[in-house]
Amino acid sequence: MPACTADHPHTITSLGGGHGLFQTLRAVRNCAPEKINAVVTVADDGGSSGRIRHELGQIPPGDLRMALAALTADDDEGMLWEGLLQHRFGGHGALAGHALGNLLIVALTDIFGTSQLALDKVAELAGSTGRVLPVCVEPLDLEAEVSGLDQDPRLMRQVRGQVAVAATPGQVRRVRLIPERPEANPEAVQAILDADLVTLGPGSWFSSVIPHILVPDVVDALDRTDAVKILVLNLTAEPGETNGFSAERHIHVLRQHANNLKVDHVIVDSGTVTLTSERDHIARTAKTLGADVSFQDVRAEDGRGRFTSVHDPSKLCDALMKRYAEITARR
Amino acid sequence: MPACTADHPHTITSLGGGHGLFQTLRAVRNCAPEKINAVVTVADDGGSSGRIRHELGQIPPGDLRMALAALTADDDEGMLWEGLLQHRFGGHGALAGHALGNLLIVALTDIFGTSQLALDKVAELAGSTGRVLPVCVEPLDLEAEVSGLDQDPRLMRQVRGQVAVAATPGQVRRVRLIPERPEANPEAVQAILDADLVTLGPGSWFSSVIPHILVPDVVDALDRTDAVKILVLNLTAEPGETNGFSAERHIHVLRQHANNLKVDHVIVDSGTVTLTSERDHIARTAKTLGADVSFQDVRAEDGRGRFTSVHDPSKLCDALMKRYAEITARR
Repeated sequence: MPACTADHPHTITSLGGGHGLFQTLRAVRNCAPEKINAVVTVADDGGSSGRIRHELGQIPPGDLRMALAALTADDDEGMLWEGLLQHRFGGHGALAGHALGNLLIVALTDIFGTSQLALDKVAELAGSTGRVLPVCVEPLDLEAEVSGLDQDPRLMRQVRGQVAVAATPGQVRRVRLIPERPEANPEAVQAILDADLVTLGPGSWFSSVIPHILVPDVVDALDRTDAVKILVLNLTAEPGETNGFSAERHIHVLRQHANNLKVDHVIVDSGTVTLTSERDHIARTAKTLGADVSFQDVRAEDGRGRFTSVHDPSKLCDALMKRYAEITARR
Repeated sequence: MPACTADHPHTITSLGGGHGLFQTLRAVRNCAPEKINAVVTVADDGGSSGRIRHELGQIPPGDLRMALAALTADDDEGMLWEGLLQHRFGGHGALAGHALGNLLIVALTDIFGTSQLALDKVAELAGSTGRVLPVCVEPLDLEAEVSGLDQDPRLMRQVRGQVAVAATPGQVRRVRLIPERPEANPEAVQAILDADLVTLGPGSWFSSVIPHILVPDVVDALDRTDAVKILVLNLTAEPGETNGFSAERHIHVLRQHANNLKVDHVIVDSGTVTLTSERDHIARTAKTLGADVSFQDVRAEDGRGRFTSVHDPSKLCDALMKRYAEITARR
């Protein structure tokens, strides 16, 4: 365990993927810990990432790139790197839609021989405030059991691939990884063990959050770590994979996928869940994870005071730091 | 004019493209001037460059990338950047064969709005020892009059595109640019005017060397500059565009394409031209450019003492510096 003051984490490790992880990392940067680790899913099979994994056999770089972009230095050079990593080629040809950052990660992986060395190099070039760690070093596939695709609602179908799962018009019941029980990236495991605070979520629940707890080494590390573990719930159910899901059901399906998963706390946006009865349900379900729940305003507003569908980095940072201080004080 | 000692150039500006320019820049680096400018042709329409120009409408980046790679810093970081810029994607898909450096130049051009700003940024990132300047800021096309493609050897055909010209089984008689008389990149013009030494060649004669003197502003700048101007001849005739060309003919066709072009000196590899009669012919033809000729060993050897088909950076640097000192002393 690194040294840390009672109320401020030295090392924060955030698990997730995609836009959810991007926002979390922005929040975590606001908390100004000495070290940030992003542990990132590698099951994407769509867009630029999907084309790269199928063409070159590498782990899909898109979620890794987005995490790198969230962590670029807070100066002109960092801004340029963020723009460069996220830059997508236009036109209507073979390059259209590819993100430069994805191609940079792929090229450096070819040169260095491992994606971790490549990611550390990009982080160094971009003056990153943290490290980005793929949860596994081999590309994974996601397969879901989906109901509601047939007239008979009891009939389950297997839907294969992250894009297909995310877009299914049915109800996702359960997801699994292929290969099942994959080996974790040892550096990702170490980042969980070394953390003072671990965050899980928000993000696409079945494709960016749950995959982490399907990796046995990750569940084991989450069990062994002394870190405070905070689950951050999504603000809205996503069309497709979590269509119509309540906040409670998000927690419920998470637990379904990892029976012995324990976390310390669940942060729920207060504006998302307003009914006392619903809040009680959530608190009861959270107890199955061993967690307390807090309801607080963590949603971003646009320039005109209207709520958006993403977490506000500053509000989420405050919420995380407050809960972290409370929990460490209790211990 | 920048200050310079009598026998050492402060600023060297090298005109060319492709592998020829790469070797020249390696030689010029050895000369350790304060400033190096690479002025680079932009008529390539093949490979990664050709796909990019046709897909995204940008100037072909390949020759620019290669010049950048020749100028990366002389340390571990510079070595990595050279490898990264030159890295080509494998596989058999849409990315296969694309050079990462080309894609980086394209992305930065999108971000900054001009290729010059993009190239200066890559040079900065790579700790470059010089600047890379496209000769024109619009993509150019090359068109050649080629004979020998029909039974009647007098019949001329138009061959369009650098790849087609370079690979023609006929004899290239004359090339022109499309658009004709294109506007030069003002920064390239300034680099010629500011130079103490300007080099032209070696390189693919019709596609990397002659295109420079088809840009009126470049010919004008070469006329106005106080720089010492040295033409470096190729070591061998290239299959395709200069198949069977003697050294003398290289000079002759150059002059054909720019009547009033004057240079101070022509460097010819002594091992390439050994006959006194041929050397006399070359000297006579060089006079039409206003130039003296020197014959000296500038060819690289491989590790086993066998000659290669490229110039040796160290030998070429010595040759350039010796001639530069002689010419400035005479003035």
